[in-house]
Amino acid sequence: MKKVISVDIGGTAVKFALISENGEVLKKWNIDTNVTDNGGHLPDDIVDSVKMNTVDTENDEIIGIGIGVPGPISNNGGNVLKAVNLGWNNVPLRQIISAKLNLPVVLLNDANAATLGEMWKGAAQNKSNFVFITLGTGVGGGIVIDGKVINGVHSAGGEIGHIPVESDEHRVCGCGNINCLETFASANGLVKTISKIFEENNIEKNEYTSVDLFEDLEKGNKYAQEALDLTVKRLGLAIAGIINALDVEGVIIGGGLSNAGDALLDPLREQVAKNVFPQIRGNYSLKKAYLGNDAGILGDAYAVFYGDI
Amino acid sequence: MKKVISVDIGGTAVKFALISENGEVLKKWNIDTNVTDNGGHLPDDIVDSVKMNTVDTENDEIIGIGIGVPGPISNNGGNVLKAVNLGWNNVPLRQIISAKLNLPVVLLNDANAATLGEMWKGAAQNKSNFVFITLGTGVGGGIVIDGKVINGVHSAGGEIGHIPVESDEHRVCGCGNINCLETFASANGLVKTISKIFEENNIEKNEYTSVDLFEDLEKGNKYAQEALDLTVKRLGLAIAGIINALDVEGVIIGGGLSNAGDALLDPLREQVAKNVFPQIRGNYSLKKAYLGNDAGILGDAYAVFYGDI
Repeated sequence: MKKVISVDIGGTAVKFALISENGEVLKKWNIDTNVTDNGGHLPDDIVDSVKMNTVDTENDEIIGIGIGVPGPISNNGGNVLKAVNLGWNNVPLRQIISAKLNLPVVLLNDANAATLGEMWKGAAQNKSNFVFITLGTGVGGGIVIDGKVINGVHSAGGEIGHIPVESDEHRVCGCGNINCLETFASANGLVKTISKIFEENNIEKNEYTSVDLFEDLEKGNKYAQEALDLTVKRLGLAIAGIINALDVEGVIIGGGLSNAGDALLDPLREQVAKNVFPQIRGNYSLKKAYLGNDAGILGDAYAVFYGDI
Repeated sequence: MKKVISVDIGGTAVKFALISENGEVLKKWNIDTNVTDNGGHLPDDIVDSVKMNTVDTENDEIIGIGIGVPGPISNNGGNVLKAVNLGWNNVPLRQIISAKLNLPVVLLNDANAATLGEMWKGAAQNKSNFVFITLGTGVGGGIVIDGKVINGVHSAGGEIGHIPVESDEHRVCGCGNINCLETFASANGLVKTISKIFEENNIEKNEYTSVDLFEDLEKGNKYAQEALDLTVKRLGLAIAGIINALDVEGVIIGGGLSNAGDALLDPLREQVAKNVFPQIRGNYSLKKAYLGNDAGILGDAYAVFYGDI
């Protein structure tokens, strides 16, 4: 049976998995992410952990390694251009890992990996034209056209969180731009929106989170409703814009906010439907991602099994 | 020398051209578009005109026919799904023309054809990831990723004019939706914007056009400036959004409004640059289309010579 080792490098942990050709997760393990010395020890840590955890596995069964990283990959697929959380700057990771483990290596941006994971085994199964949007601390995503993730000319494809929003507000985004979608539609953005509403109504709240907001929403709180409506309006316009430009067949919503389920998705579906091109209306789906944290490792494996290595 | 016959079907005229493999237009001619009987005579008119105008051409030199139509094409490439201006509804044009002229036929949406034309011989030469936007009576366009036009799952890819804009206004679009980009950034939209400004300032103007606006702009007219600023702001946000989602290397602006040249493009460049993702900023171009009305016939020919027929 052919197998692939998936490696999902995050800022605090590196997640590993051994995955079969049909997408079964045969084994999972983690190590802490060592970011000292500009992440210089990480490649060896990864190599050692893979060796230690695959001693029982027949070597000739493992056909390659898929690695998801929190940053852009060079167009030739060999280098991690930048990974701020790891301290990496133009690291030739493919060559390093491939030489030490004597296996082919595929590098992927982590958002693109999660997108491929949802296509292979998640909410976008059997779709080859769709958009995956994660609403978490930030807003990330991936765009798939004809079964391939759009990596972009400067490895910045799928930066849906940085679509600019027309607004009278002046929200500074982590990227340095003003009023990026992320500043409104992320968990942080949502909290910022309701905080502004609280302020306007002289209500004091401390450490109010997006989870509190959805709880208040369930209780019929009008401020929570107002904040959600504003967020859904902006996010829905952006999603409809993407659908109208690309005419995809599906939109998958993941990330922490997607746990709110239909409380978020139902009004979002309504807002998107109002603004999509008539020819497309009714002919696409908007649903919650299935795979949660496993999307990345599955996408890493998919890229090795079925991508153009 | 291999040649292709290009046919660009418009609402008032059908434009024909004989085009060589290197993109030389060897011959051009037109016929009126006969829309009586739901455009039922058009296929025969096209066949007759091709026969009449290619009697001097060695038959074995013509390798195929590329036809651009003002409407969406079925995913299998055989049918014109709808062409309101022609009265067509699901016309199997490829089969009809191919059988009568005994040549392979490629059908294209006219906006997509113009996009391919600009890629082959126009402003997007040597680019394989770019967006073409026409600012005319409406706003149309095409999106090219890895050298291929995105046709979309429902043949509605590239409907950039129908990206929704966040606005307090309520502009009804031809498609039936509210506040589509087209209602702001087309020649008509621009005129609507300045008309509103004139009204607010109790100024009466009759039959004021977008050409008048750019003339007034040159004279330093503040209302013209205000209307342009508003238009550029909205169009620039939409373009930056597309660039951030797809990470393309270029944006080409065509259509009637593009004749305003840098009076439009310079402020637009500034607005887009402010809103693109930092990693992309400075690494793309925004320029005027080169080919004007010839873009379509060149794209039709390109699709036959170099597309996947």
